[in-house]
Amino acid sequence: MVSFIPVLAHSDFSFSNLPWAAVRWSDGSIHLATRIGDRVLSLKALRAAGKLASWPELDLETFNRFIDRGPEAWSAVRAELIEAYREGSSWEHDSKRALCECDWQDAPAVLPVSIGDYSDFYASRQHATNVGMMFRDPENALLPNWLHLPVGYHGRSSTISVSGTDVVRPNGQRKGPNDPTPVFGPSVKMDFELEVGIILRGGPTDASWISVEKAEEHIFGFVLFNDWSARDVQQWEYVPLGPFLGKNFASTMSPWIVSYEALQNSRCAGEAQEAPLPLPYLQQNRSSSHWNIELEVALATPDGQETVVSRSNSSNLYWSFAQQIAHHSINGCIIRSGDLMASGTISGNDPDSLGSMLELSWNGSKPLALHDGSSRTFLEDGDTVVLRGRAQNGGRIGFGECRAALLPAKRWQK
Amino acid sequence: MVSFIPVLAHSDFSFSNLPWAAVRWSDGSIHLATRIGDRVLSLKALRAAGKLASWPELDLETFNRFIDRGPEAWSAVRAELIEAYREGSSWEHDSKRALCECDWQDAPAVLPVSIGDYSDFYASRQHATNVGMMFRDPENALLPNWLHLPVGYHGRSSTISVSGTDVVRPNGQRKGPNDPTPVFGPSVKMDFELEVGIILRGGPTDASWISVEKAEEHIFGFVLFNDWSARDVQQWEYVPLGPFLGKNFASTMSPWIVSYEALQNSRCAGEAQEAPLPLPYLQQNRSSSHWNIELEVALATPDGQETVVSRSNSSNLYWSFAQQIAHHSINGCIIRSGDLMASGTISGNDPDSLGSMLELSWNGSKPLALHDGSSRTFLEDGDTVVLRGRAQNGGRIGFGECRAALLPAKRWQK
Repeated sequence: MVSFIPVLAHSDFSFSNLPWAAVRWSDGSIHLATRIGDRVLSLKALRAAGKLASWPELDLETFNRFIDRGPEAWSAVRAELIEAYREGSSWEHDSKRALCECDWQDAPAVLPVSIGDYSDFYASRQHATNVGMMFRDPENALLPNWLHLPVGYHGRSSTISVSGTDVVRPNGQRKGPNDPTPVFGPSVKMDFELEVGIILRGGPTDASWISVEKAEEHIFGFVLFNDWSARDVQQWEYVPLGPFLGKNFASTMSPWIVSYEALQNSRCAGEAQEAPLPLPYLQQNRSSSHWNIELEVALATPDGQETVVSRSNSSNLYWSFAQQIAHHSINGCIIRSGDLMASGTISGNDPDSLGSMLELSWNGSKPLALHDGSSRTFLEDGDTVVLRGRAQNGGRIGFGECRAALLPAKRWQK
Repeated sequence: MVSFIPVLAHSDFSFSNLPWAAVRWSDGSIHLATRIGDRVLSLKALRAAGKLASWPELDLETFNRFIDRGPEAWSAVRAELIEAYREGSSWEHDSKRALCECDWQDAPAVLPVSIGDYSDFYASRQHATNVGMMFRDPENALLPNWLHLPVGYHGRSSTISVSGTDVVRPNGQRKGPNDPTPVFGPSVKMDFELEVGIILRGGPTDASWISVEKAEEHIFGFVLFNDWSARDVQQWEYVPLGPFLGKNFASTMSPWIVSYEALQNSRCAGEAQEAPLPLPYLQQNRSSSHWNIELEVALATPDGQETVVSRSNSSNLYWSFAQQIAHHSINGCIIRSGDLMASGTISGNDPDSLGSMLELSWNGSKPLALHDGSSRTFLEDGDTVVLRGRAQNGGRIGFGECRAALLPAKRWQK
């Protein structure tokens, strides 16, 4: 299917994509939107023009209430958009059409959902193994629970921002093995984490659970997610209750939520789970439990020059998204529409497929050479981190950039 | 100061208290409210009757927007309420007054704030020591970071409910030291945690922080908080990212938020912090850094018979609430109005001042005798846990009960 709106071959936003975002429209208000090529389409304006009449939730500033409507509604809206924007549609020449579109550069994105709770998993075996080797025991890098359950923890919703929002290097406590007492100051081990997140539809509220078989019915869509980390702060604080200030200062989310439906032709198998076999509530046919989303991390130095420092793939997760959802809700924990679950850092087996500076520089021992001639162990002020991701479905199904610059720490004074 | 509404000597709701809650009013809608003795006063109805004219935020269903107005607003509303309800006020005989009041039993409470993010600390030294002795190393029970920073983690907002909401025993994975592989089923180590929480006013959003000196300006008020815990689930899952499904199935909050101002005559000193001295951003004059709030936990068996199993005090915290806030925000983490920070289990030095069954029964090795003739190591289905707390300020300043019953687990099936 082709749209009358032109789409360049390298565009993330083919006509099969039709992702979701919230944007600041020309009148200054927030509109929910989709995109074809370089054109952003306001769903609110389309409704004012007589389209999408059954979905008043699309007039709101976030997708939360629309997500409540469920997969059939999401699919129906996509079908209406395809019908309106396909080649040959009468809408192409409708006088009201111009009011519904603008160039993507004129519609800056804001957060598309109100995120009630954000949880972060640790679902890549290679990442968990690498961290275990560096910080705990190289001989027993994976902790005993790791192959039995998708380890996860709760993160901070208040500091999740959309691509383009600067991140400030945090102050905090750290204590290296040679420091007699902890020291205070800006983190000296600033890192990114390459993750994929899912935006969820709410689940039961009666202390029951979402089964692994039905879990994907709760995936509204996918985002790229940079879980910024201050490794030195994290390492000192994290026992016994987990990461806190080393993570909760900032996370960056891609502006576009790629819908579950758009990625249906990009399914792939997941790694077998036989030794050990998970408990029954986590058992899942692995033949199409994963997604083939190509991922990359680019590091741009202050001069704007980019070096791609990692190429990974969401198929590198050991625990699937369905398993993450099933595990998260097995105890009756309530999932609300708009909640975010992120995968944890997605690292592959190759040295250039690692999803964090911690792993790429092996905790600072192996500097990375960048195209501007400099090198990095961790991030420096003025660096910009860009995550990109794409699948194929006829055309390219991409997320746009998940981009943020790192600014210098604020100077603490009493 | 005395009100024309009678207050019995043992009432939690003396005229000095004037706590905040949201209740379901006789017309079915949610009203923000306060309370004197057994009478609930609707702030929305008072506004309709011409009182509290400057505070339209009190017409809403949560306090979040009113909290944004800041301490002077909170204090001004208290002063207006005292003026209207003091003995001798003309309001006593005003015909509109009856529309603004009802008996507390006719106004069931709902959650008084929309909680964006909930964080839980671990601020009682005795509790952290006890847990460290049981699960890690009795000789080095406190981990190296504990005396340097208030250890905390993020919890789940979606499953915080108000007193009176039943809790269902969660299913989950556990693996004891003698189990060859993890087993699945209802938790067999159900526990409460006696905590005090604070409801916060939002802080800076520009990556700066709230200083320890100004931290208390961000405390709207205090609640009792039961951080229900499934110890067996928690123990198996918690490395390395902290508690998750062992906690996030339910937390119970007292209906009444006791205001910061009402507790100003209940300040007390905190334990000295000299070995080690905290870093400067956490240093605080300890002479009145804490609150003297008497706490108790009662366990009611299914026949309704109560046994008080613990008596503690919020002064048993090592890290003050101001230190918790200052630490939480030192990295630029954004605090929003309505956010909740809880203290962690508040245990004292005496054997009957421990704030969890885990500690009271020493992980199941010392059963507790109850008044109905039965005994407990952990909680049984049908048990009800009631937290109570009170300070004195002329009359009693209490929270009402933080009460919830434990129901049997739902039966999992594929």
